[in-house]
Amino acid sequence: MFIKEKIDGIKFYRFQPVQVLALGFAAVILLGAILLSLPISSRDGNPTNFIDALFTSTSAVCVTGLVTVDTGTHYSLFGQIVIMLLIQTGGLGFMTFATLIALILGKKISLRERLIMQEAYNTFNIQGVVKLALYVMGITFSIELIGALILSTQFIPQYGLLKGLYFGLFHSVSAFCNAGFDLIGNFQSLTPYVDNTVINLTIMSLIIIGGIGFAVLTEVINYRKTRRLSLHAKVVLSATAFLIISGAIGFFLLEYTNPKTIGNLNMKGKILASLFASVTPRTAGFNTISTSDMTTAGKFLTIVLMFIGASPGSTGGGIKTSTAFLLFMTVVAVVQGKEDTEIYQKRINKSYVYRALAIALISFTIVTFVTMVLSIVQHGDFIEYLYEATSAFATVGLTLGLTTRLTLIGKIIIIITMYIGRVGPLTITMAIAHKQQTTTSLIRYPEDKILIG
Amino acid sequence: MFIKEKIDGIKFYRFQPVQVLALGFAAVILLGAILLSLPISSRDGNPTNFIDALFTSTSAVCVTGLVTVDTGTHYSLFGQIVIMLLIQTGGLGFMTFATLIALILGKKISLRERLIMQEAYNTFNIQGVVKLALYVMGITFSIELIGALILSTQFIPQYGLLKGLYFGLFHSVSAFCNAGFDLIGNFQSLTPYVDNTVINLTIMSLIIIGGIGFAVLTEVINYRKTRRLSLHAKVVLSATAFLIISGAIGFFLLEYTNPKTIGNLNMKGKILASLFASVTPRTAGFNTISTSDMTTAGKFLTIVLMFIGASPGSTGGGIKTSTAFLLFMTVVAVVQGKEDTEIYQKRINKSYVYRALAIALISFTIVTFVTMVLSIVQHGDFIEYLYEATSAFATVGLTLGLTTRLTLIGKIIIIITMYIGRVGPLTITMAIAHKQQTTTSLIRYPEDKILIG
Ligand SMILES: [K+]
Ligand SMILES: [K+]
Repeated sequence: MFIKEKIDGIKFYRFQPVQVLALGFAAVILLGAILLSLPISSRDGNPTNFIDALFTSTSAVCVTGLVTVDTGTHYSLFGQIVIMLLIQTGGLGFMTFATLIALILGKKISLRERLIMQEAYNTFNIQGVVKLALYVMGITFSIELIGALILSTQFIPQYGLLKGLYFGLFHSVSAFCNAGFDLIGNFQSLTPYVDNTVINLTIMSLIIIGGIGFAVLTEVINYRKTRRLSLHAKVVLSATAFLIISGAIGFFLLEYTNPKTIGNLNMKGKILASLFASVTPRTAGFNTISTSDMTTAGKFLTIVLMFIGASPGSTGGGIKTSTAFLLFMTVVAVVQGKEDTEIYQKRINKSYVYRALAIALISFTIVTFVTMVLSIVQHGDFIEYLYEATSAFATVGLTLGLTTRLTLIGKIIIIITMYIGRVGPLTITMAIAHKQQTTTSLIRYPEDKILIG
Repeated sequence: MFIKEKIDGIKFYRFQPVQVLALGFAAVILLGAILLSLPISSRDGNPTNFIDALFTSTSAVCVTGLVTVDTGTHYSLFGQIVIMLLIQTGGLGFMTFATLIALILGKKISLRERLIMQEAYNTFNIQGVVKLALYVMGITFSIELIGALILSTQFIPQYGLLKGLYFGLFHSVSAFCNAGFDLIGNFQSLTPYVDNTVINLTIMSLIIIGGIGFAVLTEVINYRKTRRLSLHAKVVLSATAFLIISGAIGFFLLEYTNPKTIGNLNMKGKILASLFASVTPRTAGFNTISTSDMTTAGKFLTIVLMFIGASPGSTGGGIKTSTAFLLFMTVVAVVQGKEDTEIYQKRINKSYVYRALAIALISFTIVTFVTMVLSIVQHGDFIEYLYEATSAFATVGLTLGLTTRLTLIGKIIIIITMYIGRVGPLTITMAIAHKQQTTTSLIRYPEDKILIG
């Protein structure tokens, strides 16, 4: 697939990869839905409702994790393996694609702007592309395998050797791809392991590594050799660290006395659970404490963290850590009376700020619209709608319980939202508007001003 | 007061007017609180709880309209007149100040950039300032008087001549200043007049005229002579029209079958009530249908409209129509691949876009923070907190009923929020950051890029 694109020439790369990505996703989702709706995929041998199979397949390919039927109890081993492969395809496919696109755009825009890629991939040719794809897969599988083995040490004593290894693999893939699917059963997610240190730390590490993006991951891996980090890596790493730590402190304080979440845990459990609650909205979707039993403030904090999400070119969703960071630094620049946004002593061109603004606003509009539609077609509390809409859009997979109560229209809306969230709000909007990103306006109007604020 | 500033010289004008405004507001609020807490101000002759008096005074000066005690039944005639004068001071004072500041900044920045002011005020001197202040007051009082007379035709038959005139005046001032205070009693606001055409159209007109800002109002008044509108006026007028019409259609559709709001009204009543529901979040705060009986989607639509609010230099709050319009057009520019934001065939400099972005983000952060705090210190539904926080911040005055249930901390939080919302989020932030708006960065860093979205 990659090779073909190269042969078709440069122009093809400008917009087509996104279309290929969008259509490829849709095709895989449909294939997955058909497979999952077969009797062989369900535990009781009956065909699964097509809308639920489609919902599961979309959720898996878009690495969201929202489920209308419980993965562990509803689906057979065959169905579960289909789901795991869909997750792997969605997570890996997107990651490879995003890396390729970044590489291609980086080459096109300017040679001076050395993008986030390493020397090995600087020479862009067919060998390079194949090599890159293999490299991404190699890293992904290695990390997932390590995660699977560590998790197995906890699952084997409980479930026996084979099932323990299988559970280790499934949850490692699900965590690294930020999918959030689990096999624990009855929509429990990882709540039985709320104070299991090994499972908590392993899952959190997989989520974070999968969520910082392949480009940054490569830089970190090669840091010992290169001794430098790009601005992008600095931004992603510092924003991720800030969000995780401040989020964890927030959950710790908000839930400290809540007996239904962390109130009855010992200090180690409280800290682990707070950390996990802060990591999972970036945008894994596992939970170790009951989401619906959180305080209202805790739920709202989760919504905010979900909206920001993970980092670009990763398996996670949301408006992205770097987008949020850039917008924040632009506010700082305005407040300080500076003309340009400055990050780590670099100026950021306005085109990036505008793009970040567009992503944030379109995302905000989509979440608002979906929340509005859910509040029309469902019965329940407003915060459930906002939570569900944000979770679907940012491909998080956390829910306050609305997913299983979704009406047919509700399911369709959430399916579309997950898809848009995964392909990217700006991409979708530009695709709909039939415009290329790099078109330059021919008419240059005179400048004028308006009063704001 | 205005004269003194002029004598002190130009430098004084850059930042000081905002400080004068902020401190002046605080002083008037405190004075009002003391007066309202006196026994003479309450109907039963007992002193009013100071925190409630402070809440009422802040709400009046910041033209918000949120009330912990009912204006019509709790306060004596004296207390009510104090409230009306506080509203007038807040509304008029701010309007005059905002106009002056716009004029001053307009003069300072560039002569070519002819601001929104008319010839009479182009020569900036002491006479000009006094003249301008008188002009603003003249227009304000004229409009309020006309409104009062029209409203009286409806109130006099019900309440008799004197009380009818008084009610006409109070509600006219309250509507033009976008204050939303009412004397109808028992927190009813204007619900008894839901299908009264005269009251609806008069109040709506006053709200809209007060909400488009003095500069635009002047342009509209002089349009017959000048035959031109500034870009700013075009933006404000088209954004206001769009928001009112689309909002009204939204409420009409969402509430059409809701018997507790407009479901049982005839078509005229349905249309009037929908229009009113769409106009009042811009940011008057009266209501003709029960806010808490709206559908969840209707409540959420109200929140969105409140957040956008009125226009700059007006008696209303929110992030402002022009800010929202500019941000929207920037998204359009990004989607279309244009380098600059274009509005009505004019390019908009990035400094305006950055400023709009800062206002929107700071506002969003404040509303988020206040919602979070309310959800910690109060008991109730999440949407009540979000609604209350947005209403207080945008100085709207609508509530789902939380205001009367506010705890002491809740009251203090809302008082601070109303104050910040009135003085302006960016202003407050810059004041806290001790920086002037026009400072230019001395160090110019090299450009670099980051990945977003
Ligand atoms: K997820
Ligand atoms: K108001």
